[in-house]
Amino acid sequence: MPPEQSESLSSLRINDVEVVDTFAEAFPIKATRLVLTAISERWALTAATELCGNATSVIACDVEAAVEQTIPSGETPDGRPGVSVLVFAFSIDALAKSLQSRVGQCVLTCPTTACFNGIENCPREKQIRIGGAIRYFGDGFQKSKKPDHRRFWRIPVMDGEFLCEDYFGTITGVAGGNLLICGTNQISALVATEAAADAIRKVPDVALPFPGGIVRSGSKVGSRYPKLKASTNDAYCPTLRSLTPSELPADCQAVYEVVIDGLSFDAVNQAMRQGLHAAAGMPGVLRITAGNYGGKLGKHHFHLRDLL
Amino acid sequence: MPPEQSESLSSLRINDVEVVDTFAEAFPIKATRLVLTAISERWALTAATELCGNATSVIACDVEAAVEQTIPSGETPDGRPGVSVLVFAFSIDALAKSLQSRVGQCVLTCPTTACFNGIENCPREKQIRIGGAIRYFGDGFQKSKKPDHRRFWRIPVMDGEFLCEDYFGTITGVAGGNLLICGTNQISALVATEAAADAIRKVPDVALPFPGGIVRSGSKVGSRYPKLKASTNDAYCPTLRSLTPSELPADCQAVYEVVIDGLSFDAVNQAMRQGLHAAAGMPGVLRITAGNYGGKLGKHHFHLRDLL
Amino acid sequence: MPPEQSESLSSLRINDVEVVDTFAEAFPIKATRLVLTAISERWALTAATELCGNATSVIACDVEAAVEQTIPSGETPDGRPGVSVLVFAFSIDALAKSLQSRVGQCVLTCPTTACFNGIENCPREKQIRIGGAIRYFGDGFQKSKKPDHRRFWRIPVMDGEFLCEDYFGTITGVAGGNLLICGTNQISALVATEAAADAIRKVPDVALPFPGGIVRSGSKVGSRYPKLKASTNDAYCPTLRSLTPSELPADCQAVYEVVIDGLSFDAVNQAMRQGLHAAAGMPGVLRITAGNYGGKLGKHHFHLRDLL
Amino acid sequence: MPPEQSESLSSLRINDVEVVDTFAEAFPIKATRLVLTAISERWALTAATELCGNATSVIACDVEAAVEQTIPSGETPDGRPGVSVLVFAFSIDALAKSLQSRVGQCVLTCPTTACFNGIENCPREKQIRIGGAIRYFGDGFQKSKKPDHRRFWRIPVMDGEFLCEDYFGTITGVAGGNLLICGTNQISALVATEAAADAIRKVPDVALPFPGGIVRSGSKVGSRYPKLKASTNDAYCPTLRSLTPSELPADCQAVYEVVIDGLSFDAVNQAMRQGLHAAAGMPGVLRITAGNYGGKLGKHHFHLRDLL
Repeated sequence: MPPEQSESLSSLRINDVEVVDTFAEAFPIKATRLVLTAISERWALTAATELCGNATSVIACDVEAAVEQTIPSGETPDGRPGVSVLVFAFSIDALAKSLQSRVGQCVLTCPTTACFNGIENCPREKQIRIGGAIRYFGDGFQKSKKPDHRRFWRIPVMDGEFLCEDYFGTITGVAGGNLLICGTNQISALVATEAAADAIRKVPDVALPFPGGIVRSGSKVGSRYPKLKASTNDAYCPTLRSLTPSELPADCQAVYEVVIDGLSFDAVNQAMRQGLHAAAGMPGVLRITAGNYGGKLGKHHFHLRDLL
Repeated sequence: MPPEQSESLSSLRINDVEVVDTFAEAFPIKATRLVLTAISERWALTAATELCGNATSVIACDVEAAVEQTIPSGETPDGRPGVSVLVFAFSIDALAKSLQSRVGQCVLTCPTTACFNGIENCPREKQIRIGGAIRYFGDGFQKSKKPDHRRFWRIPVMDGEFLCEDYFGTITGVAGGNLLICGTNQISALVATEAAADAIRKVPDVALPFPGGIVRSGSKVGSRYPKLKASTNDAYCPTLRSLTPSELPADCQAVYEVVIDGLSFDAVNQAMRQGLHAAAGMPGVLRITAGNYGGKLGKHHFHLRDLL
Repeated sequence: MPPEQSESLSSLRINDVEVVDTFAEAFPIKATRLVLTAISERWALTAATELCGNATSVIACDVEAAVEQTIPSGETPDGRPGVSVLVFAFSIDALAKSLQSRVGQCVLTCPTTACFNGIENCPREKQIRIGGAIRYFGDGFQKSKKPDHRRFWRIPVMDGEFLCEDYFGTITGVAGGNLLICGTNQISALVATEAAADAIRKVPDVALPFPGGIVRSGSKVGSRYPKLKASTNDAYCPTLRSLTPSELPADCQAVYEVVIDGLSFDAVNQAMRQGLHAAAGMPGVLRITAGNYGGKLGKHHFHLRDLL
Repeated sequence: MPPEQSESLSSLRINDVEVVDTFAEAFPIKATRLVLTAISERWALTAATELCGNATSVIACDVEAAVEQTIPSGETPDGRPGVSVLVFAFSIDALAKSLQSRVGQCVLTCPTTACFNGIENCPREKQIRIGGAIRYFGDGFQKSKKPDHRRFWRIPVMDGEFLCEDYFGTITGVAGGNLLICGTNQISALVATEAAADAIRKVPDVALPFPGGIVRSGSKVGSRYPKLKASTNDAYCPTLRSLTPSELPADCQAVYEVVIDGLSFDAVNQAMRQGLHAAAGMPGVLRITAGNYGGKLGKHHFHLRDLL
């Protein structure tokens, strides 16, 4: 995501760190939440990790997905430890298609798991069907049960039954909240960005779809190869300083980006605030900025000025 | 995978555990190995985990993939900590297509990583291109270097350069080695199967593609729904005992399967041996068996008798 | 901790689980909180884990100690990721003596760490000195700094300086809150107790000093060996049913205890509530009870009835 | 541990990293190995971590201890997953006293564990008693069993029985093998030293007693305070360059040390070799050296020259 020219921007500060007076530009996207439970938090996380793999960016993956948080056993639908997962796609149909496959391959298969809808009060026409699609694996032995206006499928498997809710709600969320952390060297920048990601993971209603929550291959729209819609954001590549105009601070040898998807503007805003303050406390951080497209493409603007 | 009728089979034993005198039936498959390095073992594992997500079974995923092992920094191509990953697909083309996308989405994006070929001495016509396909992300700023007859692409990114080897070797491996662990209850069966998976992970040249290395949704070929090629293996579902002929021991309430893919017959055989002995030492295990199709479909047969 | 005879007790229920109408009996104890920061949450946890090792019970260890929670970098004294640790002992002097040694051996030595007081507003006579005792390691090169009425020691080490606060507050807390989870077998009881421990770890101001938060060697006061002050609680040992009067439910093969130390009655009470409800949702749990001494020894009584 | 003056030393190299032509000086010490098993590798590790806490240096702790390696369930005495732990002290009596307490507090208490001797063929007069000392906790209900000339105690606890071997062998090992990694800044030096520690952990018969395997508070013998036997190694403190003669390379801002204890000279030598090569491949490493006392105090000398 190419940040606009920062030269003309005035600068803010947290501690000794420069905060560019710019904004992150984000987009509406369709979202859902799955609550996975299992015999232990560890097994719920195992299923969630498999489910959320190869799901970093809807540019090339079918969905963006990541773990939201862990849920104590006293607070889940079936009284067992749980993990909530947020999943994002360009359309409700894309969500449905992807999750019918991913839940079938990654959760149905995983020891002891069950799978529950995590978006309440969604009108039927915006719901997607998951359990109802997977149930045929039961080869006619599956059964439905319907307590409290919700329908569940009980699909017999080798360790008992896989319980999967029939319909899942969807919501229009926000994709592409972001922070760019510019550091003096690769490891310092990375450790500071990890601190930001750790802080953001404590905020509800958001998820970080990239590996470990962090992306190092920032991109610009378009490329010199006609087929390629996006390519490396050369203005942010430290090795290209002598070849192309640079947006980097003078002593910066590395930049990392945190990309934040969320269920609402407020959730992404709060996540960006926590991440900004967490990164600003770390050694070796020169500048924190954010990526946008001049404000014309994305509906949601998150101004760093408002997060101080 | 429906084991054949065990009633007619004589029984072997390890300790007090019954080992059915049967065999696992497995298939040739195309395989490759990627060596991912990073600034730390933890980041190499982060990239590997993202890369291997949603890759449990080629029935519905584009590939089967899992971490093989960690590699100390003194033994990797670039002297940094590494992780090797094994990836399997029905054809060389399917491997190439999947990995061009997965490496681009999950490794190129991941902080500090590099990506090296892990199959030496492969004839050119069986090699697949990864770095050479991803290089265009560099938007013309990428460069190649060619020490020692191997070509690498250096693609500029925000934390420096992503180094990715151009070509990767492939090999004809083995898919579908397996063990079925029958236990007195769900948790005992699971803990015993985890012990088997832990032991198998110490064997080189094999990988366990299912979540946590274990699958609970064993399947049979076909179903009563014409479109569905595979469905739940009802003879191994403890909740269906009263509805359908059962293959389960009398007191068995849960079965888990370890599915093993490997680079050779010998590697899968050694993995099955380690897993068999590890599971047999655990409490609550009633029977260990393996899945086959009568021996007519798969080229490779792993007889449990030979593993005692 | 020997629960009193449960036969005469009426029973409560959560779901299908029996909750004995009894109470946990706990004691006043001296407590402090250390906030450890480091370059990453992982290194803060590494120091905390070393510091809290061999600290399960003040019966035989110098202190009881465990991690309380992780703290995002934006919320710690030095802006780096942190972990808070709670430490308990019979006297303020015992706390001081133990922590001067433990911080010197386990935190001073640990890469990148700093160590801050986590109990504010403590009168000077109840404070203990840590940084001021360790500072001599600096061999005269140590320096103090004193922002905001707090004094810190900067002790030169090979990776820079170890920053350690001079004085730490203490408080009178509560030791020995507890729950006893009775299960149908060992693994089920353990998994249910883990769910309770996981839920309790989300509650502030409490810590679980035993390994993984759980103890299996419940004790009674005294023994047939005169020197031994405590011995196995035979009424709760499933293998002794035929040899000694048993307090166990008929089908119970295993019991685990969660022991909870905290900074206040309310914190321990809230932790017991979360743990009770978490365990009650898990499969294989027959009964949940608590340990006491008839109410005559300990000042604090936590009635399970009040936690439903 | 104060390395001798490096100025007069010629230099070796691995890649671009300077390796000082010096040696690590180490000492004979008494050692034992415990094999802890449990229902899962994770619980065996939980007990081992508690047991090895607050055990970094025999200067001030009762023992030095760390995990050696994990053991698959097929290869342990009771067929369950295991972890081996190495423990070191100045005398056999100190080992016995410490482990009677530590096993009682940290292993007896820990869910599902058992504890086995890991040093075979030790003459009786060099053995230490652990199970035989802890057995009294059983309050007369404990039983011994004696298969194969080894005696075990079965001590009844709430989840069944704690099985603990009566006697454990000891051996004369080696304490204080070490490497000093000098880096351009704190985080680079740390990440490189972590790579060394990761590589060393794959070598059998050695253990790393400091937090995460790494120590940052290198010490010299003596101090200006008469009571203090050791104090900060000021020649290796980057913040003291202007105050005291420095042994650091010009651009070095941080040094970390790996301290290696082992069961034999060869094991420590092999560990140092693996660690040296692992660190030398990492970015930001300026120099690798080792600590000694001029060779007069310690019996064992490990020359870096021999490890290239």
